[in-house]
Amino acid sequence: MTSLTPLPAGFSTAGIRCGIKNDPQKLDLALFVSDRPCTAAGVFTTNLVCGAPVKVSRDRLPRSTARAVVINSGNSNAATGDRGIADAKRMTALVAEQIGAAPEDVLVASTGVIGRFLPMDTLQAGIPLVAKELAPSAESFHRAAQAMMTTDTFPKQATQSVKIGNQIVRISGVCKGAAMIAPNMATMLCVIMTDASLAQSDTAKMLSISVEDSFNCISVDGHESTSDTVILLANGASGATINSADDRKAFQEALNQVAMQLATDIIRDAEGAHHFVELNVTGCRTRDEAFRIAKAVADSPLVKTAICGADPNWGRIVSAAGYAGVPLLETDMSLVVNGFLLYQSGAPVAFDAKQVSTNLRDNRNVTIDLSLTHGSAKVRFWTCDLTKEYVELNADYTT
Amino acid sequence: MTSLTPLPAGFSTAGIRCGIKNDPQKLDLALFVSDRPCTAAGVFTTNLVCGAPVKVSRDRLPRSTARAVVINSGNSNAATGDRGIADAKRMTALVAEQIGAAPEDVLVASTGVIGRFLPMDTLQAGIPLVAKELAPSAESFHRAAQAMMTTDTFPKQATQSVKIGNQIVRISGVCKGAAMIAPNMATMLCVIMTDASLAQSDTAKMLSISVEDSFNCISVDGHESTSDTVILLANGASGATINSADDRKAFQEALNQVAMQLATDIIRDAEGAHHFVELNVTGCRTRDEAFRIAKAVADSPLVKTAICGADPNWGRIVSAAGYAGVPLLETDMSLVVNGFLLYQSGAPVAFDAKQVSTNLRDNRNVTIDLSLTHGSAKVRFWTCDLTKEYVELNADYTT
Repeated sequence: MTSLTPLPAGFSTAGIRCGIKNDPQKLDLALFVSDRPCTAAGVFTTNLVCGAPVKVSRDRLPRSTARAVVINSGNSNAATGDRGIADAKRMTALVAEQIGAAPEDVLVASTGVIGRFLPMDTLQAGIPLVAKELAPSAESFHRAAQAMMTTDTFPKQATQSVKIGNQIVRISGVCKGAAMIAPNMATMLCVIMTDASLAQSDTAKMLSISVEDSFNCISVDGHESTSDTVILLANGASGATINSADDRKAFQEALNQVAMQLATDIIRDAEGAHHFVELNVTGCRTRDEAFRIAKAVADSPLVKTAICGADPNWGRIVSAAGYAGVPLLETDMSLVVNGFLLYQSGAPVAFDAKQVSTNLRDNRNVTIDLSLTHGSAKVRFWTCDLTKEYVELNADYTT
Repeated sequence: MTSLTPLPAGFSTAGIRCGIKNDPQKLDLALFVSDRPCTAAGVFTTNLVCGAPVKVSRDRLPRSTARAVVINSGNSNAATGDRGIADAKRMTALVAEQIGAAPEDVLVASTGVIGRFLPMDTLQAGIPLVAKELAPSAESFHRAAQAMMTTDTFPKQATQSVKIGNQIVRISGVCKGAAMIAPNMATMLCVIMTDASLAQSDTAKMLSISVEDSFNCISVDGHESTSDTVILLANGASGATINSADDRKAFQEALNQVAMQLATDIIRDAEGAHHFVELNVTGCRTRDEAFRIAKAVADSPLVKTAICGADPNWGRIVSAAGYAGVPLLETDMSLVVNGFLLYQSGAPVAFDAKQVSTNLRDNRNVTIDLSLTHGSAKVRFWTCDLTKEYVELNADYTT
């Protein structure tokens, strides 16, 4: 947890309860504001069925004059048609009024129940209140993280510092994880702020690189949400400009760290999960082939239930690789789970199944190393096990 | 159940216990023999990691002189390398000796534990015994069906008759379902016999057509097995030859019926399932687009858990369609579940959630009709819900 780390310079944040969620204990409105214009970029769900806020924010990005992101939880404003679009735009206009910005410079994201119109009266009353709470403090940042949560069990924040010339640049991110409450669906939302000065084209490019190896390499259940959103805001308030190749490299690495910490926190908090699984697929011809194999293994309910049951079931893992759409032979593959060699060059290896099972049962973290002999491309992917609790959480419907 | 229906003319079958499975109550060796050469074709798993029997049978098909199929349960002879190939060939040679055929005219399939060598002594003793039991009776057919089972709870058989000229032609099939016992993996095996006379090219073509709309349209958990096998044998013993367009049409329809009944029986017997789900995706530009949408919906753990919980969660269904890789707009889709309209032209419809939920809870059969506005192509797909029992069955590992 990094709740004591300050925000990047020039940013203030707030989280309040305005009354969208039923539970009177829960915060539901978050605001992230820069005191000056930011270069900004976003990465959004590729689901063709997507929420109104995704459509509005996607239209406005990339841009070089962004000022704020407003996020509500408790209602995703998805499947709400033209009225949903108007409501999302109205949220940004209400924020713009409070902070003295153009509505188009405010971005928006929502998560929660789908198919219901936003309670605009509640938001109209709430937005001035959340704006009044804006502060550049660790506490406000923590409350903003809490206000994004749905069934997350802990707020997710990450901060990195990097020295650019003589200046310290900060990158602070916050996200909420894949979580469902019937009749909702999974959504992940993320805001990353930095006080570095980034060229508009760099904002988009660097965000895209960091998302590729973090949020695009996690899977809870393979069901892609309608609302996934990651937004990067760079306001330059530190005085440091990212220009040279060395600076870019250092900044990119720090940004990747923030994104990876937030993405893996989503998996650590995955619904019903007992195990956190890191999957390393190596020795491939291309990253895309490594990625396809990793995704097939990570999404297999048979692999996920085996891990839940502490079953060192190499057959399920190598057979998932076999249907990933990547040309391969059994003899090209070897498999190590938590350091135990289970399968080598296409044949099972004699191992003490009881010992490996006990190891799996006793460790929340599982590392699966699947190596091929095709080349040097690789990918790291994170997933979780499939448990009875997951089924319970997602099948529990009460009218 | 069709256990009283006789086999097609010229075929005899048998099922015995030879001792591969631990449980002394369970049959584990099945034999299907034609008294004359058959045109034969097969459809196999596309998993690149596949069992030795798949490799051996695939090499031998299509052919016009096939005589028998031998199947054992309790050991899949997968991930067993060159020795596995030799063992699979040896099984066919032992059968060939018993029935007076060339080894290449005998096909083989295996299902069960992977990564272990077949107990060849047991099979060498068992094959003469199963050959001695061969009979053209309903009882022998039933025992053959039982001997293929792993965690299936009932044997799966189907028979259709069709009049070709003045002759009655029979088509009888048997299969086992997708079922896992740690450390096994899912496998479906199927043998279909007919006493029609079919040209070699027709055997392959007609089997392929019938598999396309049956075994290729079912999914329990999306994990493709290493051993899936469907074999069609046509021996001509009825005296009827399938020649004219009308005859081909009638025969194809009957064959489709057999394949579809067997395929849906696999879903009816899916591990831990509480609901049998028929998914009709209509109004698409192409069958392939309809198929992709159906598969995305059927494989979504969020859709499957919603059905388990009797939750009329239209959001999970339409959002799965959104990431199926098919160009579409929300407004192109409408959704009916068990006759209740839930979503029309991109917007949720007001419905009595309690009434629909009660309907889902009280009916084992669920019909999901997802219609698009793109064209007239469609697909029918079968799946099941995801339950705590599924997780329990597949996570239950005991060393």
